[in-house]
Amino acid sequence: MDETLLMIPGPTRVAPRVLKAMSENIVNHRSALFGKILSETTEMMSDVFRTNNKSYLITGSGTAAMEAAMANIINPGDKILSLVGGKFGQRFGQIVDAFGGQSEVIDVEWGKGVNPDEIGYALEENEDIKAVTVVHNETSTGVSNPIKEIGKIMSDYDALYVVDTVSSLAGDEVDVDGYGIDICVTGSQKCMAAPPGMAAITLSNDAWDVVDKVEAKSYYLNMKKYRKSGAAQPPETPYTPSVSLMYAMHEALDIIMEEGLVNRVKRHQIAAKATRNAIKALNLELFPDESVSSTTVTAVNMPEGVSDGELRGTMRNKYRVELAGGQDHLKGNIFRIGHMGNITHRELITTFSALEMTLRELGFEVNMGEGVAAVADTYLPNNI
Amino acid sequence: MDETLLMIPGPTRVAPRVLKAMSENIVNHRSALFGKILSETTEMMSDVFRTNNKSYLITGSGTAAMEAAMANIINPGDKILSLVGGKFGQRFGQIVDAFGGQSEVIDVEWGKGVNPDEIGYALEENEDIKAVTVVHNETSTGVSNPIKEIGKIMSDYDALYVVDTVSSLAGDEVDVDGYGIDICVTGSQKCMAAPPGMAAITLSNDAWDVVDKVEAKSYYLNMKKYRKSGAAQPPETPYTPSVSLMYAMHEALDIIMEEGLVNRVKRHQIAAKATRNAIKALNLELFPDESVSSTTVTAVNMPEGVSDGELRGTMRNKYRVELAGGQDHLKGNIFRIGHMGNITHRELITTFSALEMTLRELGFEVNMGEGVAAVADTYLPNNI
Repeated sequence: MDETLLMIPGPTRVAPRVLKAMSENIVNHRSALFGKILSETTEMMSDVFRTNNKSYLITGSGTAAMEAAMANIINPGDKILSLVGGKFGQRFGQIVDAFGGQSEVIDVEWGKGVNPDEIGYALEENEDIKAVTVVHNETSTGVSNPIKEIGKIMSDYDALYVVDTVSSLAGDEVDVDGYGIDICVTGSQKCMAAPPGMAAITLSNDAWDVVDKVEAKSYYLNMKKYRKSGAAQPPETPYTPSVSLMYAMHEALDIIMEEGLVNRVKRHQIAAKATRNAIKALNLELFPDESVSSTTVTAVNMPEGVSDGELRGTMRNKYRVELAGGQDHLKGNIFRIGHMGNITHRELITTFSALEMTLRELGFEVNMGEGVAAVADTYLPNNI
Repeated sequence: MDETLLMIPGPTRVAPRVLKAMSENIVNHRSALFGKILSETTEMMSDVFRTNNKSYLITGSGTAAMEAAMANIINPGDKILSLVGGKFGQRFGQIVDAFGGQSEVIDVEWGKGVNPDEIGYALEENEDIKAVTVVHNETSTGVSNPIKEIGKIMSDYDALYVVDTVSSLAGDEVDVDGYGIDICVTGSQKCMAAPPGMAAITLSNDAWDVVDKVEAKSYYLNMKKYRKSGAAQPPETPYTPSVSLMYAMHEALDIIMEEGLVNRVKRHQIAAKATRNAIKALNLELFPDESVSSTTVTAVNMPEGVSDGELRGTMRNKYRVELAGGQDHLKGNIFRIGHMGNITHRELITTFSALEMTLRELGFEVNMGEGVAAVADTYLPNNI
């Protein structure tokens, strides 16, 4: 049994009752019993997405759901506009390419915020853009994109609004119907704190109108098949789902409902604030602009004279706390602290205590205890 | 906790130690620890496939692996020949269509065997066929196709040999290298007796040569990305895998190795023989020709005067034994008994005792005990 504390931006720590749910006997995935579990799980998913539309669960990673979003709306040559300020923004463009779409890009410097008006300008210039993709929380840079404000602009245009909330849903503010999102996707192993391997997607009526006119570019991820099976009695998935992960999702969603979405988001906001305060108290620097810094993952510039291998290696091997490194050109230049899912002040205290010791050992000047104190201070009732 | 005995052709009953493995803590999927688990699991998969080539695990159903097989070798207009004698044979053709390939079909009456020479004739007529797909065990009809003999014929041609062993691997004889199979796919929840949600694929050098010349028609199922990630140190998957299902697969494969592949196949062969003997003892009729009847699932004609709903409903609700019905045009006309995975004489005795009582209750003339006796008789040491 590995006891390393996962402070990475997914997978996140899974509650024992969720892990335990997976050890239930496997049932027939085409039975009334499973149909009931599936219905309840997808209904809770829609509640978390904050939509009146149906949600669908896909056995696969968040990337599978991103692919499902694209494979069902693209005809060869269709223009899809992607907001790209990190690795996951890029991924949408790569998926568009794989299906023969034409990928248009609004490039934003990694770590910076986007002016929502830029999406409006791009749509004015390119009237035939079929859909706009936005990654709400860019896990690779720790930047949160303004999906609410972009949604307001999108409401003036016909293009579908596709949002990846893989690392934000149930941790940051998402309101699918309220923001006018047409296709929203997420993954199990981030803020929902279920084990990895299941993804979810929801589509608006406008999105379904497009889907109905397009021949799906995938068989496994053909959403028309998911809609048909989901409407059967008992409800089913078109292909054998991971029954065990469905149990886990059901349990993880039960926990979310017990906590309440508003409370859960608030808890993430406090954890993010505590993390930023502690980073500053230790004289470390945030990688992204603080004004757009993520609610679920904090990216930090690698301190002068400290290597990624030493920092994360010491944290992992000596103190059993796992942080994430940078991706692509940020590899070695930043480290990332995930604070999503079942995050409380306890994990942050542990993390910052370990980080203080690690930095001191590696010769970086640090006033021991100041990071930990900054975390604690943020959680004091008067400061929340 | 549902205690229904699953006698369906997947998902199958999962051993408690495999279920228990899933309740282990989630670890970082890009860590040395997970890399070790992934390596060991894929190496055991290659042993079960009986290939010296690498295997890859995909989070998804068996259909995802079928799609991976096609998405990586098809360019628009490419001809793919599919042997179709049931629902899963058809599925390959539908996947070919989804990727813009040209699907050619050898149609075999459902329930009948194919003459392997027909594949040779088709290849002679169509020199530009790029690949031939065969479903080893057609779960929908209970027919086993002669993949060894077809392999011999395929060795005279350049077309890739693609075999679906979703419901046969680790239950019936499969020898990927020995039969000259270029791409072999399978699922977790059938004879391997792991929970559903994970699929496996292996590719020969000839297959990789084709894959390297084709732009993958899927991003999530792009096998070049799986190859690259799998060769990293530590080995990874390109997208976040189901960590819990990987634990389960590792444990299920451990069990397979402990039993030994030869013993396991022999056990399935005896269970299939016992099932057929019991069916005949009860004056029921096999749906497929007995000579091609599957080693892992037995399809039975619905007895005169008995409805599918009554038969399977009574079995399920009164005796807690779940059988499968027919699919597509066979719906209502057959029922199917899965005997794959952790199948022993005990489950068959239970099943046939329940079936005898059910048939008697539904007015079908049956000599009580004769099915059960036929099962027991088959398992007597002298008869094995």
